[in-house]
This record gives sequence, C-alpha cells and structure tokens, in this order.
Amino acid sequence: MARIVMKFGGTSVADIDRIRNVANHIKREVDCGHEIAVVVSAMSGKTNELVAWATEASPLHDAREYDAIVASGEQVTSGLLAIILQSMGVDARSWLGWQIPIKTDGAHAAARIQEIDASEIVNRFAKQQVAVVAGFQGIGPDNRIATLGRGGSDTSAVALAAAVNADRCDIYTDVDGVYTTDPRVEPNARRLSKVSYEEMLEMASLGAKVLQVRSVELAMVHNVRTFVRSSFEAPDAPGMGDFNNPPGTLICDEDEIVEKQIVTGIAYAKDEAQISLRQLDDRPGVSAAIFGPMADGGINVDMIVQNISGDGKFTDMTFTVPSGDLEKAANLLEQNKQEIGYNEIQSESGLVKVSVIGIGMRSHAGVAATAFKALAEKGINIRAITTSEIKISILIDADYAELAVRTLHSVYGLDNT
Amino acid sequence: MARIVMKFGGTSVADIDRIRNVANHIKREVDCGHEIAVVVSAMSGKTNELVAWATEASPLHDAREYDAIVASGEQVTSGLLAIILQSMGVDARSWLGWQIPIKTDGAHAAARIQEIDASEIVNRFAKQQVAVVAGFQGIGPDNRIATLGRGGSDTSAVALAAAVNADRCDIYTDVDGVYTTDPRVEPNARRLSKVSYEEMLEMASLGAKVLQVRSVELAMVHNVRTFVRSSFEAPDAPGMGDFNNPPGTLICDEDEIVEKQIVTGIAYAKDEAQISLRQLDDRPGVSAAIFGPMADGGINVDMIVQNISGDGKFTDMTFTVPSGDLEKAANLLEQNKQEIGYNEIQSESGLVKVSVIGIGMRSHAGVAATAFKALAEKGINIRAITTSEIKISILIDADYAELAVRTLHSVYGLDNT
Repeated sequence: MARIVMKFGGTSVADIDRIRNVANHIKREVDCGHEIAVVVSAMSGKTNELVAWATEASPLHDAREYDAIVASGEQVTSGLLAIILQSMGVDARSWLGWQIPIKTDGAHAAARIQEIDASEIVNRFAKQQVAVVAGFQGIGPDNRIATLGRGGSDTSAVALAAAVNADRCDIYTDVDGVYTTDPRVEPNARRLSKVSYEEMLEMASLGAKVLQVRSVELAMVHNVRTFVRSSFEAPDAPGMGDFNNPPGTLICDEDEIVEKQIVTGIAYAKDEAQISLRQLDDRPGVSAAIFGPMADGGINVDMIVQNISGDGKFTDMTFTVPSGDLEKAANLLEQNKQEIGYNEIQSESGLVKVSVIGIGMRSHAGVAATAFKALAEKGINIRAITTSEIKISILIDADYAELAVRTLHSVYGLDNT
Repeated sequence: MARIVMKFGGTSVADIDRIRNVANHIKREVDCGHEIAVVVSAMSGKTNELVAWATEASPLHDAREYDAIVASGEQVTSGLLAIILQSMGVDARSWLGWQIPIKTDGAHAAARIQEIDASEIVNRFAKQQVAVVAGFQGIGPDNRIATLGRGGSDTSAVALAAAVNADRCDIYTDVDGVYTTDPRVEPNARRLSKVSYEEMLEMASLGAKVLQVRSVELAMVHNVRTFVRSSFEAPDAPGMGDFNNPPGTLICDEDEIVEKQIVTGIAYAKDEAQISLRQLDDRPGVSAAIFGPMADGGINVDMIVQNISGDGKFTDMTFTVPSGDLEKAANLLEQNKQEIGYNEIQSESGLVKVSVIGIGMRSHAGVAATAFKALAEKGINIRAITTSEIKISILIDADYAELAVRTLHSVYGLDNT
C-alpha cells in the first residue's frame, strides 16, 4: 500500500467523459489499496475564458478579483470528479484551497504556497476517502482566494504530496513521459525512465513543457518523487496499475539513478534574441547598470557572455532575451546609455538556443568539445556559449535548429536503436 | 444618504456589457452618497450549464458537491462586477458567502440562511467601499459551500438588507415592477406603486414570478422594504436616481400603504389538476390518511375543499395538485384506498386557478359575491372555491382563463384608464 497524489491537467478533464476516464485511473489505484489525493485543473479552455472576461471587464484589474474569478474553474472540476467517483462507489470529497487550507503569501495571481494543513485529508485516508483538491489555488493572508499563476496545479500537487508525505506524485498529462528530446524534431527520441530534478529543471525551463518549473523546484526541495505519465492511456492498459514500474518518467533524486548517463537530453528554446553591447566601459557596476533596468522592466535575461577585456578599458557584452522583448530591451539600453557607457548596440532576433543536459557531465571532461566538433562538421555557426555544471547551451541561427538537435542527440548516443 | 442593497439577476449580468450597465446603476447610487451593497446572480445560462454537468456526472449526486459546482457561477459575476466598478473609480470588492460569512443550515442545495455577520461590510461602508456579494450561497456548519436553491439570490439580498439594516432592498430585474395582473393577458394592467408583503406572497406563489416566495417571507419577517425595478431602464433615465420615488413597485408593510385598495391584483396559475374522492368515510383522521401520503410523495396539494356530510356517514373531498403530479397522486390514492375509505376517484387535469388578492378585502364584505356574479355573467363555470383573509381562489376550465382574468380585472376597477 502506498500513498499517492495524482494530478490531472486541463485536457485530461476537458469534458464529463474525460473526467470519467480520470475517475477510472483513480479507481484503479484505490482498488490496489493505495491512499489517494487528487489535484485537478480547470476544464480545458475554461481558465482562458475566465481570464478573457476579467480582461474584457478591465485590462488593468485587481489581482484579488481576478483570483476569485479564475479559481472557479478548478472548483467546478473538483466537484464533478467527486460526484463521478462517488457514482463508481469510491468515497470521495472535493476540497477547495480555503477549506484545507492551503495558505499562500499575498502575491495574488502569482502566489506561493506557504503552508498546507493536510491533517484532515490524512485522517480521511484511514477511512478510504479520496481527497479531490482544486488545484492552482489557496487562501492568502487577507482571507481571499489566491491563485498560483498559470500551470500552478502542478505546484499544488507537488506541495500536497510533500504535505501528506506521499510516496509519489503522479502527474497525468497529454504526453506519456519525458523524452531525450522533442520527438517531433527527432523521431528517434527515447522516453527516459528516470531523470534527476536538476536535469528536469534545465529541461523544463528550456521549453520541454511537461511540468511547470516551480513544481520541479518544489519537488527537489522536498524530495517528492514525481512521475510523469499519460492520462490518455487506457486506465486498464498493461502495467498502468503496477506501482513499481508503470509506463512514464520518474523525476527523482540523482542518488536514485544508478546508471547515470553523461548526457540525458537535448533541449531547445526558440525565439531568442541576442543583444551585444560593443566597447562597453570595463568598470565595476556596469553589469548592474545593464541588468537592473531589464529586471525592473520584467525582461527575462537568459544567456550572459562577457569577454575578458583586451586593453583593460573596454569589453564586449552579449546576452539573450525573448524575441518579443527585444524592442523593449533595446529602448531601455538606449535610455540608460549614458549611465551604462557603451559605444554601440547590435541585436538580432529569431535565434535558437540548443542545450545539452546531463548530470553525468560533472564527472566527464570533453562533453562540450564533442558538441562543438559535431556542430562544426555540419557547418553550424555558434554565436554564443554558456555552460553550467550539468548543461551546455549554444546559441545558433534558427535555420539550423532541427539539424543541431538531431546532430547532438546522435553524437551523445541518445538515439533509440 | 441612505443604505441600499441592490440585487441583479442573471439576465441583468448576462455578459460583460450588461454587467457594465449594472455598474452604471450602482455608480449612480454611489454618486448620490448612498451606502451600497450589491448581490449578484450567475450570468444567465451559467447555472443551468453547471447543473447539467453535475447531472451528466451522475443523476443522483452529493448535494455538497453540487453546491461547490453551482456556486462558482455567482463567484465569477461578483469578481467581474467588482473589477468593472473599480475601473469606473468606484471602490468595490467581491465577497463570497464563506468570506462574510453567510452562515446557513446543513440542507445543501436548499439551505436556509441562519446568520450573517455583516460587521466588516458595514465597516467598509464608512470608507465608501461597495460590497459586491455573490448571491445564492453561504457556508454550512460543515464548512462547505451551501446554496439556497433556485432563485436564492433574492433571498440573499433580503437577508443581507436585514443584516446591514438597509433602508431598502432594490431588486433589479427584467420587469419594471409588479402589475395588477399579467400584462400579456390584460393589456390594461397597471403597475402598482406599493403592495403589501402579504399580497406579494399570494401573488408570487400564484405565478406572478417576480420574486422568490422565500425572499418575500423573509422581507415580511424582518420588515425589509423591497423595491422591484428594471435593470434594463437606462441608468440615467428620468427618476432613476430619485431615492424617494423611483419607477417600480415597493413591497412594504401594509401600514405604509395609505390608500388601501380592496383588490390589488388578479393572479392565475395554469396546469392545475383536480381530484375528487366520492363517498369518502366521514370520520376523524381521514384527511391525514389522504394528505400524509401526498406530502411523503413530495406532491404539493393546493386548494382543498370538503363539503359537509349529508348523512353523517359519507362526504366528498376535492383538492388540486399540479397537472404533472396527477398520475402519481392518483396512484398513491389507489394504494391507500383501504386505509382512506372512499368509493370512487374522479380527476381532471388542465385546469386554471384564478385568484383575487387584496388586503382591503378584510374589511369589505361582498368581494367574493362580485367575482361570482361577474364570472356567471360571462358563462364561466366555477369548479371549486377557496378563500383566505386576503384572497379568493376560483378553479375553472383552462379555456376560460384569459376571459376570467380580464373580467375580474375590470370588475374590481383595476383597468388602466
């Protein structure tokens, strides 16, 4: 017997038939004798509809009212799922964020969970009752509904799993796991059976949009074993009820991964823009002068590359921002030209960042050199490089994106054979 | 300066444009310096959609889950209205039932309000903040959302008006007041400027569906002056901002009605069915034997007429039920034939009950005689008669319904001239 938190996203609960399918997944686990809490998103499209209404009411609106409006979507789904479970003979009740309570900070529309009192839910596990929890929502210090930001139901699920001390948090989604790279780009991509939190974080933030980044961070901090699996697989398909080895990808501590791959996956992020500041004053505080205004403007700066100064007076600085923010970023740099002190801005949009990710890199030299050599052989020009302990990111022209992903996938031996 | 609770129903908040119109009505009152709390229903059609989902999930469902699902409709409207008010420069915040709190009993899906702690709302009146309250909902003793049953937002509004000690409860609806009879039947029907609680109760329960019966009962108990007016009238139309004499109908204590009419209005209820039990044993307990099973079966018995026994052994009993319940009622009577003791059941469906209503009746003799004479002159056969202090109800064939309404409307001098 295990304790499992199961999370189902919007496409998995898009209508009553799909919610019934979800209920069958839950019943399978209940019938195995597991203790179950479920976290649900709003029905697919509902959150968008509610957000559109709030925006139509006023483009600039009170985040507290926005929260009350959009949280209603998960409220509906949790009630419907509880009803369907009951009709199948499974004891279940819905829980709203304020009822548990899931306490958050006061940052409405982007709140963070601070505390979950799961004692009553745990009490009811003993009575075989399934808790159906509305995701994405909690209650703020002002006693009002607070939502966690888009994709927040993943975070709700992981936080609840930590609070009830679950053996695993199963994230049911429209893909059946985490792959070595995007299968649409490389048909030979393989599903990973295990991936470490750190690797998943790098993959998630790089566009492998299986899980919300914040939920992976939370899973890492609380060591919540998180399992990505498909809700569209038939509930009674082979292996689905096998607690120890169901189909999907386990995100876990690296200690649990016995055979560590040097490289686990290849990720990519489109629509990057590159900004270079030429003949930048090489003095203390210059980086703060550049990136302070970017942060204030809400622009997410990603790669940052600064070359060593040749003459001790000037240097060059290159960094990337999302293409959509390029104009805003360039304007901010123009406005602060005096204070920053540079000669010229050069920029280019429509670039792609390709990343090689793997915890095995830490203990293996030459991983980066392999990438550079493989790309050079295909005639792919590298615009910028950044590296971390478990990641190498390379900025290239968008035209070469697919070729680069496939080349790297192959050179690191990730192809399914 | 007055304190007003304003209530807007589903058709008045059907989309963002209509909610904006509602906000203009509110702003008009705020600009007059009044203290305002607003109660809103779900957007037109939303509650039906949510109920349909709950029923699709399972026809027999947990009323507590049903409540969590359907209460979301009012939650959305209250947030949207607060946003729009804020965008117009009116300070406003939404309140959900559990936040105030509006405490109810535990009868989920048909809960009754037990207590409203309006202290915080009243505090905020002093800061010119408008309270936008989600109607139809409260919180039960189990700390779960409880709804008040269909049309419950009227009840929410009246109860809130009592709790904040409001000068008036304005019910904005898709009609502009209460009429002497249905204007679709009698074009000469007049809008009443005032009507007593008792009269309104008789009218509401007889099919003049302007206000939920329970809300009128509550208004009577707490003496909440309740004003029925149109939300489709332009917010700046003449007289709309006149606190003392706006267009509409005031429902109030009869003491406030100086010139009491003998007859205030003519109501009618369609689809009545008549059941007669012939040669019924005339003994104590026979009525209980008949109507006990009806009540247990959820059948709403209306008119009951029992003639005096001729021979001291047998009598006849006639009563009416909704046509839709006739078969069920007849079956129940058959099943209990032995216990009740009667010779024969006669029944007929598709009848109409026409009622003459007026508090002035109490002090005037001959009101009923006038009705009987007028109907006889038109050749309308009377099947049954019941009377109360302020009402005479007459059961007739459906074919004569409109003629009877117009005849009575005219004979009591209600025609608009």
